[in-house]
Amino acid sequence: MGNCCEAISNVRKNTNVRVSLPAVCFVWQIAMVVLFGVFIRYDDESDAHWEEFKEENNITSDIENDFYFRYPSFQDVHVMIFVGFGFLMTFLKRYSFSGVGFNFLIAAFGLQWALLMQGWFHALDPNTGKITIGVESLINADFCCAGSLIAYGALLGKVSPVQTLVFTLFGVTLFAVEEYIILDLLHCRDAGGSMVIHAFGGYYGLAISWVLYRPKLKLSKRLNGSVYHSDVFAMIGTLFLWMFWPSFNSAITDHGAGQHRTAINTYIALASSVLTTVAISSASQKRGKLDMVHIQNATLAGGVAMGTAAEFMIMPYGALIVGFLTGIISTFGYLFITPFLEKYLKLQDTCGVHNLHALPGMLGGFTGAIVAAAATESVYSAQGLIDTFDFEDEFAGRSVGTQGGFQAAGTCVAIAFGLVGGALVGLILRIPIWGDPADDNCFDDEVYWEVPEEEEEESIPPVLEYNNHMIEKHQDLSESNFSVEQS
Amino acid sequence: MGNCCEAISNVRKNTNVRVSLPAVCFVWQIAMVVLFGVFIRYDDESDAHWEEFKEENNITSDIENDFYFRYPSFQDVHVMIFVGFGFLMTFLKRYSFSGVGFNFLIAAFGLQWALLMQGWFHALDPNTGKITIGVESLINADFCCAGSLIAYGALLGKVSPVQTLVFTLFGVTLFAVEEYIILDLLHCRDAGGSMVIHAFGGYYGLAISWVLYRPKLKLSKRLNGSVYHSDVFAMIGTLFLWMFWPSFNSAITDHGAGQHRTAINTYIALASSVLTTVAISSASQKRGKLDMVHIQNATLAGGVAMGTAAEFMIMPYGALIVGFLTGIISTFGYLFITPFLEKYLKLQDTCGVHNLHALPGMLGGFTGAIVAAAATESVYSAQGLIDTFDFEDEFAGRSVGTQGGFQAAGTCVAIAFGLVGGALVGLILRIPIWGDPADDNCFDDEVYWEVPEEEEEESIPPVLEYNNHMIEKHQDLSESNFSVEQS
Amino acid sequence: MGNCCEAISNVRKNTNVRVSLPAVCFVWQIAMVVLFGVFIRYDDESDAHWEEFKEENNITSDIENDFYFRYPSFQDVHVMIFVGFGFLMTFLKRYSFSGVGFNFLIAAFGLQWALLMQGWFHALDPNTGKITIGVESLINADFCCAGSLIAYGALLGKVSPVQTLVFTLFGVTLFAVEEYIILDLLHCRDAGGSMVIHAFGGYYGLAISWVLYRPKLKLSKRLNGSVYHSDVFAMIGTLFLWMFWPSFNSAITDHGAGQHRTAINTYIALASSVLTTVAISSASQKRGKLDMVHIQNATLAGGVAMGTAAEFMIMPYGALIVGFLTGIISTFGYLFITPFLEKYLKLQDTCGVHNLHALPGMLGGFTGAIVAAAATESVYSAQGLIDTFDFEDEFAGRSVGTQGGFQAAGTCVAIAFGLVGGALVGLILRIPIWGDPADDNCFDDEVYWEVPEEEEEESIPPVLEYNNHMIEKHQDLSESNFSVEQS
Repeated sequence: MGNCCEAISNVRKNTNVRVSLPAVCFVWQIAMVVLFGVFIRYDDESDAHWEEFKEENNITSDIENDFYFRYPSFQDVHVMIFVGFGFLMTFLKRYSFSGVGFNFLIAAFGLQWALLMQGWFHALDPNTGKITIGVESLINADFCCAGSLIAYGALLGKVSPVQTLVFTLFGVTLFAVEEYIILDLLHCRDAGGSMVIHAFGGYYGLAISWVLYRPKLKLSKRLNGSVYHSDVFAMIGTLFLWMFWPSFNSAITDHGAGQHRTAINTYIALASSVLTTVAISSASQKRGKLDMVHIQNATLAGGVAMGTAAEFMIMPYGALIVGFLTGIISTFGYLFITPFLEKYLKLQDTCGVHNLHALPGMLGGFTGAIVAAAATESVYSAQGLIDTFDFEDEFAGRSVGTQGGFQAAGTCVAIAFGLVGGALVGLILRIPIWGDPADDNCFDDEVYWEVPEEEEEESIPPVLEYNNHMIEKHQDLSESNFSVEQS
Repeated sequence: MGNCCEAISNVRKNTNVRVSLPAVCFVWQIAMVVLFGVFIRYDDESDAHWEEFKEENNITSDIENDFYFRYPSFQDVHVMIFVGFGFLMTFLKRYSFSGVGFNFLIAAFGLQWALLMQGWFHALDPNTGKITIGVESLINADFCCAGSLIAYGALLGKVSPVQTLVFTLFGVTLFAVEEYIILDLLHCRDAGGSMVIHAFGGYYGLAISWVLYRPKLKLSKRLNGSVYHSDVFAMIGTLFLWMFWPSFNSAITDHGAGQHRTAINTYIALASSVLTTVAISSASQKRGKLDMVHIQNATLAGGVAMGTAAEFMIMPYGALIVGFLTGIISTFGYLFITPFLEKYLKLQDTCGVHNLHALPGMLGGFTGAIVAAAATESVYSAQGLIDTFDFEDEFAGRSVGTQGGFQAAGTCVAIAFGLVGGALVGLILRIPIWGDPADDNCFDDEVYWEVPEEEEEESIPPVLEYNNHMIEKHQDLSESNFSVEQS
Repeated sequence: MGNCCEAISNVRKNTNVRVSLPAVCFVWQIAMVVLFGVFIRYDDESDAHWEEFKEENNITSDIENDFYFRYPSFQDVHVMIFVGFGFLMTFLKRYSFSGVGFNFLIAAFGLQWALLMQGWFHALDPNTGKITIGVESLINADFCCAGSLIAYGALLGKVSPVQTLVFTLFGVTLFAVEEYIILDLLHCRDAGGSMVIHAFGGYYGLAISWVLYRPKLKLSKRLNGSVYHSDVFAMIGTLFLWMFWPSFNSAITDHGAGQHRTAINTYIALASSVLTTVAISSASQKRGKLDMVHIQNATLAGGVAMGTAAEFMIMPYGALIVGFLTGIISTFGYLFITPFLEKYLKLQDTCGVHNLHALPGMLGGFTGAIVAAAATESVYSAQGLIDTFDFEDEFAGRSVGTQGGFQAAGTCVAIAFGLVGGALVGLILRIPIWGDPADDNCFDDEVYWEVPEEEEEESIPPVLEYNNHMIEKHQDLSESNFSVEQS
């Protein structure tokens, strides 16, 4: 067996994580408890002093609590993070446990660390030294995880659970810094995170993957693909991402028309992406057959690309155009760019995050810059311009043209953070202590999971192996039945 | 092989959609961009002029924006359309990609066309010539797609993706017209669409299917059934439909008690349907075994049948009775009516939409008529009657009896539109240019999708073929293992 | 075949439910219709008299309707009940239909009976003799079902659908009584139901299972396990439970900061559970491999344990600690306690509800007692203390220490109700008329469902049997293909 021989000659790596994984989980979780104890408290709208706060601020009804403005969107975002991203990564035939399971682990750790990191940068009360959190903090923490989950998409099948936690630790840290630079210092608007989430997360994952290049990855090729039902599982992820993307982009936009408009624009852009994805996918295959990879991924490109501009007055037709173009570009990415990157740039991108996040995120950033620069008082109203772009305090005099320039600069900052940060984190992940699999052992749940028995051995294809297994086990028992098959 | 021989004698149709599918997607999507550019704008509650609008209308808080009344329900409806309908149609063993994938395509195109069609009929500003949209428009667009998705249920496995787009184009158009006649001209109430969505969509699909009758469809019989896991996938669809049906029916009802009561009534009716479905399903099989087809479908009949009356004061026990009876009727439909229709009326209804949508929708329409006619001022209060039935302006003097009559008439209009429209669209779909499959080639994803390799050939049952495939591939590699099986 | 021989000697039970199941469904559903007719009406916020009610109570906006405070959380809870619990129970290789299907049946009946039972205890108007219901009633009804669904987890695979309805009837009844004692008489706070839902439901199921002990259950051992895809299906359940648990715990807490804080605390606690579950699961297996059983279940323990204390000022770090510890305890439960209970206490707990519900629920109850007893005016504010603990009317003078004592007492009441009630209901279920399966026939959908044909026989492992089946069917048809395999 060709694969076997090569496998034997390949030095088998130690994938035992029995010490490292529990150690990292325990130490980091205990650190979270301590840091939460020191820093994190409830904000005014979630504290038991709420009744006093209402009186002081002339709030007449509990419904004015930010909870009611944002909680439904928060839950939609939460579903996207855990079921959306998680199930999107179940498409591999024998890596579904890791796809959905390590996604779960990354996000559960990442959101805690994000509450701290984002809190230190955005919500640290200088008087008390405390971070106060509310529903908007939870949404932001989920967003922050999304960056590392996107990176996981590029690395799917090739890293150990310990490595996922390591790149999440750094990913969340880098995210909080670039977000602070982009949103606070450059004063960009990026509600749905085309720049800070998708461009950053995409390039972060790609840079890590580039540093971790596996020259003999084709030894695992037999497992780097889907089976019929794993593709159906992945559609669960796709659809929950697609359906809830309007909530993702609108979750932290302005109360009232801001959230309303953002949801509408995203809804429209996504619809448009579906049709152009289908068109390109069909046109690219013999007999016009559709490719599940495209349908599972490129249909979402419109949501990514509207992450910045959706809260602006891009107009419904503008949203349609953005979805139209990014659906095409993303599908072309799966057809041509991913193979090109792998062949010429030594960049292995399991889920094609370049095509779904990095590129549409970058395009979304620049789209936002253009739409911002083109804003006029007649379209927005004077107050509308101020509200939409937060032209207040020190930024009160900024023109829309300047804003557009800063939006473009912000996109570049996000990409730079992704690439440089990812390269450095990739070097850390190359230290041979993290328990990552060998090249011929990738994309296989067997390495890190107790898999149900019918798949106990590795080198035999599932069905044959199952038959053999059963034959050995039941040969004496079901002789007569079996002879029907054998004779 | 009997099937094979017949298949060979059967003239194989050209299912190549490599030109037609991309062409239709591109041309129609470009048309959408142009029409959106000409017609569609944000409404007052999603426009950047919102602050001015608030002042002019003495709105004191952003929470009064319609977004906060309807967005959670909208997202639930959105899940029903894409995951609910989509996964309900994954039950076939080899048509899950098409079930969920073409459902996605239909809805993504349909909602755009619906925003335009419904906009022209309901929201065209005579001064500006523009349609303004908000969250309620999105809900209505999703509803409008539901009509065509229901029709797809009758046609599942027998049409090409191009055909799905064609019947969606006409389906949405017909929907907008019948909706205008029923809701505006006849001034019916039909919040959850028993009439305008379910009765129309069901009969539309049945009429198309009748015109497209395939006399030799039994040649594809081997694929017209479920496997174990495809039935579990379908339960995802069933449950999301079932759980979110209260949101479906209440999404566009009156703010306040209207939405509240509609949700309660639907919740109750659905619970009742489950028990009677289980009862009939069990009673109809030897040893009392349950049939997944019934559980997946007939449990939803109560939601369909409450689409009109749920916003009325039907009372909780009334809702229970509606669910009770329609659960029974729908299950009987699967047991007796679908086979009858196929045998005697030449009507092939893959998902049994007759039993889940057409019949319960019609019954729901008449239930609404009866409940409306029975309304009294003591139960509703004077203001309550006006609010519930919109007895305002030109309809200020209408009596509840008259309203009941119009409700019944509306049901008939919906059915007529479905039957006549479906027959005409069926004739269009018979033109031999749409790439539909041959009779022996139905219910098979292979025709329109790149399916993972283990299922490359068509005439061999999946497992055997997989074995053969593996045997050829690995015979030289795993000789020793394999001999255990062979010897 | 050892199993076969024993099976033959085992007296086969009569699992025919063709009379009993329809009879129970029909009679009970008709009883529901009658009782709803006599007792249940809409409450002020869902009745058509809402406009009058608004005027009388100076409510200025429809958004003040309780519907808008609670409906999004209600829908999340609804998803947990039907998809969360339902899919969590699909993990068995051949019991997925029953897992999700009987879960559906239990909840659909249970919620109706709960509306009545809880209504009689909590919402019966003494003047009119009517129960009035609104969205909070629906949430409570769903909660009440959760108790019986938890019990079903312990009994999964070993009971007939008729038995599920019987233990649901009694489970809901017992629930309503213990809830009345704990919440009304003892005046405990238990918004997320650590005590009234999880401790009660867990011990109720365990007591039933103990009475129904099956000494020869190992005869069904071949089916008491998962396959690859059934574990992925179960993750759908896990994730929807995990994601929506903040809604579960906050659904009926105080408007405003109460709901807000509860959601935050639950979100945080759950994240912590994931990391400690992964740590213990990995540390317990050779090579650090993770066990899907732990990931599917113990990650949820933080949500269960925060059911009481989440609405208190437990502080974010407190929530982290609770999640931290219960994740560990729950995973240890799966590793050691479940096998111990089975071996020494004759207690067969299919889903390990002891570790996920009973134990964390009990711990959550005592956590609540401690946090309540430790409450201070400086942390809560005077008004905050009154609001949080409902120190009003007859309980106006209660101290937090006393409250803590009552919370602890409430936990004991819940456990006692579960154990005693479960033992009695177990005796009822032992009457040999309910159609339960024999010991060698458990965990098998074949008994109560029409299962797709490839799994028609029982004693042959699925793949072999499928092959045989196909061979018989196609031997004459695909001779040439087949010879490749056979020769």
